[in-house]
Amino acid sequence: MNGAPQRGFDEAEFRQRLSRAQKMMAKAGLACLLLSTEPEVRYFTGYLTRFWESPARPWFLIVPAVGDPIAVIPSIGVALMSRSWIADIRSWRSPDLVDDGVSLLRDTLRDVAGTDGQIGVPSGLETHVRMPMHTWNALQDGLTIVDDAEIMLRLRRVKSQNEIAKITQAGAIATRAFARVPEIAQAGVPLEKVFRHFQMLLLEEGADWVPYLAGAAGQDGYFDVISPATETPLMNGDILMLDTGAVWDGYFCDFDRNFAVGAGSDVAQSAHARLIDAVNAGFEAAKPGALMCDLFDVMSAVVAGESDAVADAGRMGHGLGMQLTEWPSIIPTERTVLEAGMVLTLEPSVETVDGRIMVHEENIAITETGAVFLNTPAGRALGSV
Amino acid sequence: MNGAPQRGFDEAEFRQRLSRAQKMMAKAGLACLLLSTEPEVRYFTGYLTRFWESPARPWFLIVPAVGDPIAVIPSIGVALMSRSWIADIRSWRSPDLVDDGVSLLRDTLRDVAGTDGQIGVPSGLETHVRMPMHTWNALQDGLTIVDDAEIMLRLRRVKSQNEIAKITQAGAIATRAFARVPEIAQAGVPLEKVFRHFQMLLLEEGADWVPYLAGAAGQDGYFDVISPATETPLMNGDILMLDTGAVWDGYFCDFDRNFAVGAGSDVAQSAHARLIDAVNAGFEAAKPGALMCDLFDVMSAVVAGESDAVADAGRMGHGLGMQLTEWPSIIPTERTVLEAGMVLTLEPSVETVDGRIMVHEENIAITETGAVFLNTPAGRALGSV
Repeated sequence: MNGAPQRGFDEAEFRQRLSRAQKMMAKAGLACLLLSTEPEVRYFTGYLTRFWESPARPWFLIVPAVGDPIAVIPSIGVALMSRSWIADIRSWRSPDLVDDGVSLLRDTLRDVAGTDGQIGVPSGLETHVRMPMHTWNALQDGLTIVDDAEIMLRLRRVKSQNEIAKITQAGAIATRAFARVPEIAQAGVPLEKVFRHFQMLLLEEGADWVPYLAGAAGQDGYFDVISPATETPLMNGDILMLDTGAVWDGYFCDFDRNFAVGAGSDVAQSAHARLIDAVNAGFEAAKPGALMCDLFDVMSAVVAGESDAVADAGRMGHGLGMQLTEWPSIIPTERTVLEAGMVLTLEPSVETVDGRIMVHEENIAITETGAVFLNTPAGRALGSV
Repeated sequence: MNGAPQRGFDEAEFRQRLSRAQKMMAKAGLACLLLSTEPEVRYFTGYLTRFWESPARPWFLIVPAVGDPIAVIPSIGVALMSRSWIADIRSWRSPDLVDDGVSLLRDTLRDVAGTDGQIGVPSGLETHVRMPMHTWNALQDGLTIVDDAEIMLRLRRVKSQNEIAKITQAGAIATRAFARVPEIAQAGVPLEKVFRHFQMLLLEEGADWVPYLAGAAGQDGYFDVISPATETPLMNGDILMLDTGAVWDGYFCDFDRNFAVGAGSDVAQSAHARLIDAVNAGFEAAKPGALMCDLFDVMSAVVAGESDAVADAGRMGHGLGMQLTEWPSIIPTERTVLEAGMVLTLEPSVETVDGRIMVHEENIAITETGAVFLNTPAGRALGSV
C-alpha cells in the first residue's frame, strides 16, 4: 500500500512504554508485573503472531520495576521472540503434562520479586488471566500476587502517534472496502455470501487479517449486531449493516456502515441521519478534559432517549487499539477524563420499528485541540446497494 | 457450496452432550459446571458469534447436574441466545463498572448449588477462566469452587458425526484453496501478499472466516511456523509453507502445505517425502486402543531423531474441532487412549539445513476400524509454484 506506516516499532518506543510502566510500578509499590494475554505481552515486546489462536500453551512476560522485561515462553516461540528487543528469554518445551512452565515462571518471579515483593496482575474489567486455574493456584504458594493498580489500563488507553498511525491505516483500508460494498451486495444475495466477500475486499484493500466481522440485514433495521450471517438473501427494504474489526500490523479499526437495499424508507433515512448527528455531537464534545460520560450524554440527547432495544447494547462506544474493544466505555457512569492520544469509537444506536435498531460507528483520536476522525466518516444520507 | 452439511445442531445433539456431562457430574460429585470461554459456552448452547473478539464483557453458562443449562450473559447477547435451545437466560446491562454480572452470577450459582454444592470449573492444561480476577476472587466468598474433573476435556475430545462433518467441510474448503496457491504465489511476490491472497482464496472457496494463518518461506526450509508474514519477496529455492485454521460453522480445519518456489532441491524433496511417510505411519497407528504417545513414537522413527529445531515445536500434532488446537497432544508422555470420534492433526517436523525445518500437517478422525483423512492428503512429491 502507498504511504503505509512502518511495520513494528523502534526499541525506543518499547523503552518509553517500559519507563512509564516503571514509574507507575514504583508509585504502586509493585516489584513487577506478571502478564499473560496477547495484547499485554505484545505491548512491551512487539511479539506479533496469530499463534495465540491456539489455547494449548501459556505465555508469560515479567516486567520488573527495575530492568528489562523477561519472557517466559514455550520453546516454539523463541525464534520469533528472539527477533524482538527482548534479551532475556527463558523457555520450556510445551505442552508438558506435569509442569507446563510453572516452575520456570515461579523461579523467575522469585528472582525478580523475592518472596515479599508484590507481583501485579491485571485484574479489573476487560481483563482475564490466561493460564490454567491450577497454574494460577500453584503460583500463590510463596509469592505475593496483587492487582496491577490498573497500570496496564492506564498505559494502553493513551496511544502513541505510531500506534495511531497503524489504526489509521486499518481505518483507511476498511473505508476503501466499505466503498466497494455495492460490488458484492444486492437484493437476492445471501448475507453469508456478503460476509465472505466483504472479508475478501478488506484483504484485497490491504488488511493483514479480519478478526472481526458482524452484521445483519432486516426490514428497516435489525435485532442485534453480533449474530453470524444467515443464508437468507437480501431483500428490497432491508437495511444491511456490516461492522468490521480489520487489522493492520496488529492494530484494529472498528466501525460499521449501513446500506439500504433498494431505496431506504423514510424511517431508515431519518434514523441514519439522526445517528450521524449523534456521532457528530460526540465528536464535538470529545476534547481533552471532557469525561467519557459526557460523550454518552450528548449522543443520547440526539438519539432522543433509550428504548430497551438500544439499552441492550450497554454502551455508545469504547476504546480501540491492539484489541477490537478496549477501555474505557462510553457509559453514563464512566468518569475517565479524555486526554490527547486516546482512541475511541463513537457508536450510537436508534430504534427504528418494533424493537429493530440501527447502529452507526466511527473511530476518532483525541488531540490537544479536539477529536479527529481516523477513517473517512459517513455522511447523513444513507447509502444504498 | 454443494453438499454442505446443515448449519448448527438439532436440540437432540445438545441434549445428548448435556446428558453425558450430567453422568460425569454425578460421578464426580459436582452440583454444576461454571463455564466462561467461547468453546465451553458454545458446546452446550450452539451460541456462535465472533463477538468474543471483544474482551469487554464476561459471559457465563451454568450446567447443572440436574436440569437444563442457564445462561448468565450481557443483555447485548440476549437476542442471539434466545434463538438457541436455552430457555433460562439471565442478563444484565454490561459493562457495569460496579457489578459486571457478579451478583447475578453468584445468585444463580447459589440457586443451583447452594452454599455447599461443588461448582466445577475447567482448570487443567489448555484452559483458562475468562473473567476478571477480581470477579473470580469475589465468587470464592460463599461458594465452593473446584476443578471440573476434566469433564469438558473428556466430553469435547470425542466428536459427534455432525461435528466431524463440519470439520470435514472446513478441510474440503482448505484443500481447494491450497490447490489454487500457484495462482497467487510465484518468485517475486512478497510473502505478505501471499498471506492476504491465500485468505481470500479460503473465503472464496467457502470459509466463513480465517482465524488462523501462519507460514514462512526460506531457502530449503524455515526457522519457525508461527511468525507473521514479512514483505520479503519469494525467491527461487525457497520453501513456502502455509498453515491455516479456516472455519466453517464454528469448526476448524488445521493443516499446511509446502511448496518449492521453482524446482525444489534434493534436500527439500527428500525432507517432504519423509514428512509424508511419517504422517502415513501415524495414520496407520491411529486406531482405537492405541495411545497418543504411540503416534509420536511411530512418526519420530520415520523422521529419524529429533534435532533441537524440531524439538522446539513441542509436539507432533493435537486434537482439533471447535478450536484450532485442542487436547490431547501427540507427545511422548501423553497416554490418552484413542477412541472412535477423536479428531487429530498429525504434524511431524524435520530439520533440513542449519536449524531450518519443514513441517507437514494433515487432519484425521478415528473410526472403529482405524483413521480416515478429513482432507485430501498430500502426496510425497513436493508441489511447486
